[in-house]
Amino acid sequence: MDNPILDLFRKLTLGVYVIGVTDGCTRDAFTAASVTQVSYRPLLLSLAINPQHASYPLLSAGRTWTVNVLSSSQTELARRFGTESPPDSNKMAGMSWGTGKLGAPFLISALAYFDCKLFCEFPAGDHRIVVGSVVNGKVLATHAQPLDYARTGNMDRSSGLYPAEFEPV
Amino acid sequence: MDNPILDLFRKLTLGVYVIGVTDGCTRDAFTAASVTQVSYRPLLLSLAINPQHASYPLLSAGRTWTVNVLSSSQTELARRFGTESPPDSNKMAGMSWGTGKLGAPFLISALAYFDCKLFCEFPAGDHRIVVGSVVNGKVLATHAQPLDYARTGNMDRSSGLYPAEFEPV
Repeated sequence: MDNPILDLFRKLTLGVYVIGVTDGCTRDAFTAASVTQVSYRPLLLSLAINPQHASYPLLSAGRTWTVNVLSSSQTELARRFGTESPPDSNKMAGMSWGTGKLGAPFLISALAYFDCKLFCEFPAGDHRIVVGSVVNGKVLATHAQPLDYARTGNMDRSSGLYPAEFEPV
Repeated sequence: MDNPILDLFRKLTLGVYVIGVTDGCTRDAFTAASVTQVSYRPLLLSLAINPQHASYPLLSAGRTWTVNVLSSSQTELARRFGTESPPDSNKMAGMSWGTGKLGAPFLISALAYFDCKLFCEFPAGDHRIVVGSVVNGKVLATHAQPLDYARTGNMDRSSGLYPAEFEPV
């Protein structure tokens, strides 16, 4: 079903990231696209997260997360972490994870990772904007190309989330 | 001068946008990359803006802005609106602008535009995060490809803004 609003939002240029979280005890990871830089000094990244997602309480309790940049060859990783399942389920198994300075897991096979510490957090509609100061990070695959969110199609099943019409002003 | 932190942040996937603002009287436009979707219902876009920029008081007073998606062939437009000059200077001249529902100018030659109304606003380091509800918008050039921020090099002279080291945790 055609939705001009969906087509419009697909013109935003976004990457695809695996967000690693922990509350100090349990670890989890999930796929996200709404990541951007918001400040230089201090270095801050923002992330929009659905507070209904199972990972949100872990992020909120641990006050730390990693942003792992997926490369153009890692569509299957995006899919694996894009489906919600219980924290510490086996979706994190079978790949190598490092541990960030504050305990959040980062993906050794990612193109790059950012290690974040909660700076501030705000509600924004059906999501929350969490802003993290970047306390560490590294490019892990110098010559890889980042995965483009628009190329993942409807992998995240977001197409049904867009309204069919704009709300009246 | 090599800066690993700069190299790391260049791995974020971002677009290039011209933001059109007005206070109801004066119009201005500037180039930005830190735009992302943060909510589906309502439809919300976030933008990081430096409050020292001449456009910020216009956005803040008008409580409206447009996000104009530049295409891969519009690097020169990104450059034109990436240099700060007095509002209503002739950088807006010589091209066609439409008017959004709340009065902000949008670029007819853009790949697409989003018409935003201020929803909420938060401080975040040296920038402010402004969140707008999308009240209108349209794809204007169906087959064009969005401009990739990483391909604009150091056009925005941001490379000098990155610290050389991470701050201690």
